[in-house]
Amino acid sequence: MRIHFSGLSKQELARRETLFHVANGYLGMRASFEEGVPTELRSVRGTYINGYYDSAPIHYEERLYGFAQTQQSIVNIIDVQGMDILLDGERFSCFEGTLDNFEQQLDMRRGVYTRDITWTSPKGKQSRLVFSRLASFELQQLLLMQVAVTPLNWSGTIRIASSQHGDVVQDYDLNDPRKASVGKKMIDVKEAVIVDDLMLMTAKTTQSKLIMASAVAHQSLAELQRGYTAKGEVNEAVFSGQIKENEPLTLSKYCVFTDERRFAQPREAALKLIVQARETDFEGWVKKQEDFLRAFWRHAGASVTGDEALNASLTWSMYTLLASAGRDGIGNIASKGLSGEGYEGHYFWDTEIYMFPFFLLTNKDIALQLLKSRAAMLPAAKAHAREMGHQTGALYAWRTITGSECSAYFPSGSAQYHINGAVARAFLTYYQVTGDLAFMAKTGAEILIETARLWMDAGHSHKGQFRIDSVTGPDEYSCVVNNNYYTNRSAQDHLKGLVKLCADLQEQGLLDQVIEKTGLAQVELDAFWKAATSMYLPFDEELGISAQDDAFLTKARMNLANIPKDKFPLLLHFHPLYLYRLQVCKQADTVLAHFLYEEGEPEEVIRKTYDYYEEITTHDSSLSECMFSMMAARTGQVEKAFSYYRASAVLDLEDTHGNTADGIHAANMGGCWMGIVFGFGGLRLHQDGLVFRPCLPDELKGYAFSITYQGNLIKVRVDSQAARFELLEGQGLNITVFNQQHMLKDTLSVPLNG
Amino acid sequence: MRIHFSGLSKQELARRETLFHVANGYLGMRASFEEGVPTELRSVRGTYINGYYDSAPIHYEERLYGFAQTQQSIVNIIDVQGMDILLDGERFSCFEGTLDNFEQQLDMRRGVYTRDITWTSPKGKQSRLVFSRLASFELQQLLLMQVAVTPLNWSGTIRIASSQHGDVVQDYDLNDPRKASVGKKMIDVKEAVIVDDLMLMTAKTTQSKLIMASAVAHQSLAELQRGYTAKGEVNEAVFSGQIKENEPLTLSKYCVFTDERRFAQPREAALKLIVQARETDFEGWVKKQEDFLRAFWRHAGASVTGDEALNASLTWSMYTLLASAGRDGIGNIASKGLSGEGYEGHYFWDTEIYMFPFFLLTNKDIALQLLKSRAAMLPAAKAHAREMGHQTGALYAWRTITGSECSAYFPSGSAQYHINGAVARAFLTYYQVTGDLAFMAKTGAEILIETARLWMDAGHSHKGQFRIDSVTGPDEYSCVVNNNYYTNRSAQDHLKGLVKLCADLQEQGLLDQVIEKTGLAQVELDAFWKAATSMYLPFDEELGISAQDDAFLTKARMNLANIPKDKFPLLLHFHPLYLYRLQVCKQADTVLAHFLYEEGEPEEVIRKTYDYYEEITTHDSSLSECMFSMMAARTGQVEKAFSYYRASAVLDLEDTHGNTADGIHAANMGGCWMGIVFGFGGLRLHQDGLVFRPCLPDELKGYAFSITYQGNLIKVRVDSQAARFELLEGQGLNITVFNQQHMLKDTLSVPLNG
Repeated sequence: MRIHFSGLSKQELARRETLFHVANGYLGMRASFEEGVPTELRSVRGTYINGYYDSAPIHYEERLYGFAQTQQSIVNIIDVQGMDILLDGERFSCFEGTLDNFEQQLDMRRGVYTRDITWTSPKGKQSRLVFSRLASFELQQLLLMQVAVTPLNWSGTIRIASSQHGDVVQDYDLNDPRKASVGKKMIDVKEAVIVDDLMLMTAKTTQSKLIMASAVAHQSLAELQRGYTAKGEVNEAVFSGQIKENEPLTLSKYCVFTDERRFAQPREAALKLIVQARETDFEGWVKKQEDFLRAFWRHAGASVTGDEALNASLTWSMYTLLASAGRDGIGNIASKGLSGEGYEGHYFWDTEIYMFPFFLLTNKDIALQLLKSRAAMLPAAKAHAREMGHQTGALYAWRTITGSECSAYFPSGSAQYHINGAVARAFLTYYQVTGDLAFMAKTGAEILIETARLWMDAGHSHKGQFRIDSVTGPDEYSCVVNNNYYTNRSAQDHLKGLVKLCADLQEQGLLDQVIEKTGLAQVELDAFWKAATSMYLPFDEELGISAQDDAFLTKARMNLANIPKDKFPLLLHFHPLYLYRLQVCKQADTVLAHFLYEEGEPEEVIRKTYDYYEEITTHDSSLSECMFSMMAARTGQVEKAFSYYRASAVLDLEDTHGNTADGIHAANMGGCWMGIVFGFGGLRLHQDGLVFRPCLPDELKGYAFSITYQGNLIKVRVDSQAARFELLEGQGLNITVFNQQHMLKDTLSVPLNG
Repeated sequence: MRIHFSGLSKQELARRETLFHVANGYLGMRASFEEGVPTELRSVRGTYINGYYDSAPIHYEERLYGFAQTQQSIVNIIDVQGMDILLDGERFSCFEGTLDNFEQQLDMRRGVYTRDITWTSPKGKQSRLVFSRLASFELQQLLLMQVAVTPLNWSGTIRIASSQHGDVVQDYDLNDPRKASVGKKMIDVKEAVIVDDLMLMTAKTTQSKLIMASAVAHQSLAELQRGYTAKGEVNEAVFSGQIKENEPLTLSKYCVFTDERRFAQPREAALKLIVQARETDFEGWVKKQEDFLRAFWRHAGASVTGDEALNASLTWSMYTLLASAGRDGIGNIASKGLSGEGYEGHYFWDTEIYMFPFFLLTNKDIALQLLKSRAAMLPAAKAHAREMGHQTGALYAWRTITGSECSAYFPSGSAQYHINGAVARAFLTYYQVTGDLAFMAKTGAEILIETARLWMDAGHSHKGQFRIDSVTGPDEYSCVVNNNYYTNRSAQDHLKGLVKLCADLQEQGLLDQVIEKTGLAQVELDAFWKAATSMYLPFDEELGISAQDDAFLTKARMNLANIPKDKFPLLLHFHPLYLYRLQVCKQADTVLAHFLYEEGEPEEVIRKTYDYYEEITTHDSSLSECMFSMMAARTGQVEKAFSYYRASAVLDLEDTHGNTADGIHAANMGGCWMGIVFGFGGLRLHQDGLVFRPCLPDELKGYAFSITYQGNLIKVRVDSQAARFELLEGQGLNITVFNQQHMLKDTLSVPLNG
């Protein structure tokens, strides 16, 4: 259970900073080198708190009414990565002397990243340095670092200067003054002091005026002289002493971060937490990581056999989802997790459609926290609906940190009303999987009602059909269209699910409190139902496929085979209007609708629709290939499914989109897990329970995964012979495998070509 | 023939600066007060050269490929308006002492603006001051000013300090340092010197690096002491002496401007022209204005009887069109003419659809210059087509000065491909009206071919019909639609007209030179013809009307009666996406198509279409009411036509849109003229000649206008009895009046209810 790279690549520094970032849902730190790197190399030295942001006005040359006014950006916070190391007077650097060995590894059983180096100095002194880090899952405000130095052919002096650096900018490189001057500074240091042997620093964002605090403590068993200085925006602790050949010297660095969105007094909280943190030594914290992860893996474990690289990708995807997901009801999951500043650290529909299912089926506590984070944005979503002209209802922001819209190009931003359907689906599937009616009564129903009201205000009935005009579907190569199939289908599911939920609430005597809070009336519920049952879903009789929107199939079809390779992704080479004019898709849209909402859809339509859109889809979005993998499997094209799956699984590890340096593609990681469970495993959540249609690509020996559904923990193992289902916890349940119902009490085996 | 206001209104200063601006197609100067106004009053002290611009990068928070990169803005040039006047030691100001009389007047027969003031100073000394100005139509680089001072009850000293001021900013007020600091400075003074008794100043735009020069000379018959100073960015000439009761003293100020787009050496050109200009005295230049205008009015004259105010509006509209129109093949007509900085001084389709017809039928020399100005933009239009993804053809910029796109919101900018149809129509109607085949061979055909190629690349054939997807029509409340009726209809007319032109060229042996220049092939002409004849024109069978686009009539209809008055214009109160979702129009779209392209359209469809769209049109655009007036007349609703006409005619004079202070609405002035000629006069240019369907609203006694068609100058007079046609020049022609053909040789009278 590890990700591992040998050797140092100057070109890949920033990419590996992403790949080996450590995070725990609250804090994330990129794997920059403690000792720094030369100025000319690309490095993004960053540390982030989930949801801690600065704001700035959005400038438009032509501002129209209702355009989003304020940008929000995740903030590169106080930098504690610095450790300047002098070994017998020579400064350690991977770019001086000789690197005899260089290994980077993320151990996902222990939750620890290490950089293990054997280095010979310019003067010929050889040492081993092992840098370790973890972002504690147990104490989420804690980043813990350690360096262990062992002289291999010398004895002498050692000096380690460990810093806490407040003069940081966005996309920041400690060693690059040019970058520092062009990068935007989002925090101002308010206090930088030494308190006893602690380094304490507080800062405030420039515009949003949010306070954060950082407290740093050190621990070492070695006899070292210690000196502390606070100078301007830099605190520094210097440790010096003697070191002997083959005797390791270890220094641990405890770094606590707090912020004003979670702590009323971040400074005091940081001081309290750092004291608490240092009571446990590095190995003690590693032990806590292991315990936490053992429980996580028990419920979340998924694996493939027959392809080690894919298995590592799959493991890393699950691990990184855990590391990225807020679990305090404030932080959500940024599209780059906590690994970088790409997309300004915004939350998108990626959370609900691509990542939420993983938590829903493996960790319902985190799933619930993610729902609470969306619930907290409801007032902002209502305000956004008003900005967009709606007198009623709520419209979730297309991209945001706190809930207000941050998209500066509404045709592929705010116009994507389907985010309301995505949020609704998360609440409705949570209810289905957990049966948590109390939460739905208290919180979920209100979200579902307010977002449903938006459909009613945005849509209208025309000749007996409910239509939704002028919205953008998931495919951003067609913007502001009428009756996007995906959108209308998701609104239909949302409205129906809400009406059914209200019936359940009524039955349990819980509806009144919902009515009191929302003013819901029976006539409104009737209107929801009527809109849902009369929902217009564009269909092309001639082609026998669902139509992406009213006009899509009448447009000229782009022949992708004629487009030179260097013109992809198309969005970087064609004006959006040119793309809007053509049948071409950035990503799954109608195909995604058939993935999410397959019930009632004829097999032939699903298959023909898949075939039609596949030919005109560029997969220029990282959300695309995983979905095509799952739907290829769904339509019986298992080898094609594997090919898409592979492309999706290696996206970051092989940097196939060329921008992993800016951060991971978190949604794709959800897709990587879904590709096994929903793709090859063929899982669907139907109204009447779980449905499996397992298959196995030739390239794999097998795969396995665990899910929890209505209190039942089910382990599924598939190999070339059979799909085996094992009930590990719970009362048992009915499942459907290959169209046949089975009662799962303990184990069940179904031949694969059943 | 005058526009006149009595009395000083502090609130209306900026509006009257617009109304009384003087311009000649090259230069424009707002009617700011020579002596200045108090800081707290709104005044935009501006002088402009048509097409003289500065540029700036356009910032986008989310820039997509192909978005316009560079803004262009008309520049507020060196300010020569300043005259500081001391009368017996007291400074003249309209805001001190007593204003006994204050008259502002534009005399459109003489082409002179005067401000005639009787003023009693705080110390009780009464004087008359008459400020006069003209922008010479004869020497377009000349602005000529004059002040005549007559002491009415005193004798004593006079001192006039006349300035040339280089420290100007956009939307600039000499007396307001706050504005000066916030306004953007677009020129840097390079040289400010006194040459003999001339004030000379050169400046350069900050980004576009275009040089301009200004030379100022003074003339007075009085015995005055003269002193000149050059200090920083200000040149000043001071005149002082004695003045006697009831003896007028006159000072003339000659101001020449030149720019690098017209003169290789602007400084030298300015020096040469100022010498030439001062050889003629003020009255001499007025005489030249009168001569020029006599010829202009002879061909352009239109009038109404029975409503003095409307007649003045109509006269002013024609005069202002002349004052706004470039006639050097470089400057075009800015949407605010040369009267202000609104819309950055950009040229739009307004020129071709709303203003070109006036010149085409009354002054073909200027019409030709306007076409040449568009022709000069062809390379930029080709480049713009490439930016928009087209491998072939030319797309004119939606808003521009030099030809490159300056629209920062493409859905209601670059997406308005119909500007190509507007440009094409101007060339084709020019050919029809003038028969100037030589110009078409040399220039026009190339423009028509390159713009036609764009239709072929943007459109495609689907099930036998030629369709044009993802464009925006004239109505900006529906953006990026499929098969906008107006656009498709204009493309059809364009393609057919081009094919016919090529046949004419072939017949005259002129096609080869076109083929050589453009690479036109017969197969391409065949494709043009096929696209034109198979053009898809959306029509709703049920309603019996042309459909604005494929989807428009399926959307929810906005009930304008339910919208509170203070929510208009809608664009200032609703997000564009909200408006896109509804059946609501900012301005004429399908109705405009039926105005321009009526041949073959059944009367009933024209009428029903008018009725349908009228109910959902807000006229939030100043281009709307004039068009509805003409189409109301066309559909026999004469009193409604008059009501719209009146609203259109007073738009600037009564400031009904509340923004006349920023400049005139030039297109509406074209509409005001068209409202008589095409509206009540019922003129249409059909393939086989002129068609008239004259009518007379009850509110008018009559109207008259002149047009020139194929060398025939025709005077049309309509009263309650009859429409009378008189041939003033030319060989005679066939005209159609009320569906009946007549040969017009000398005069013709047709009863009005014929």
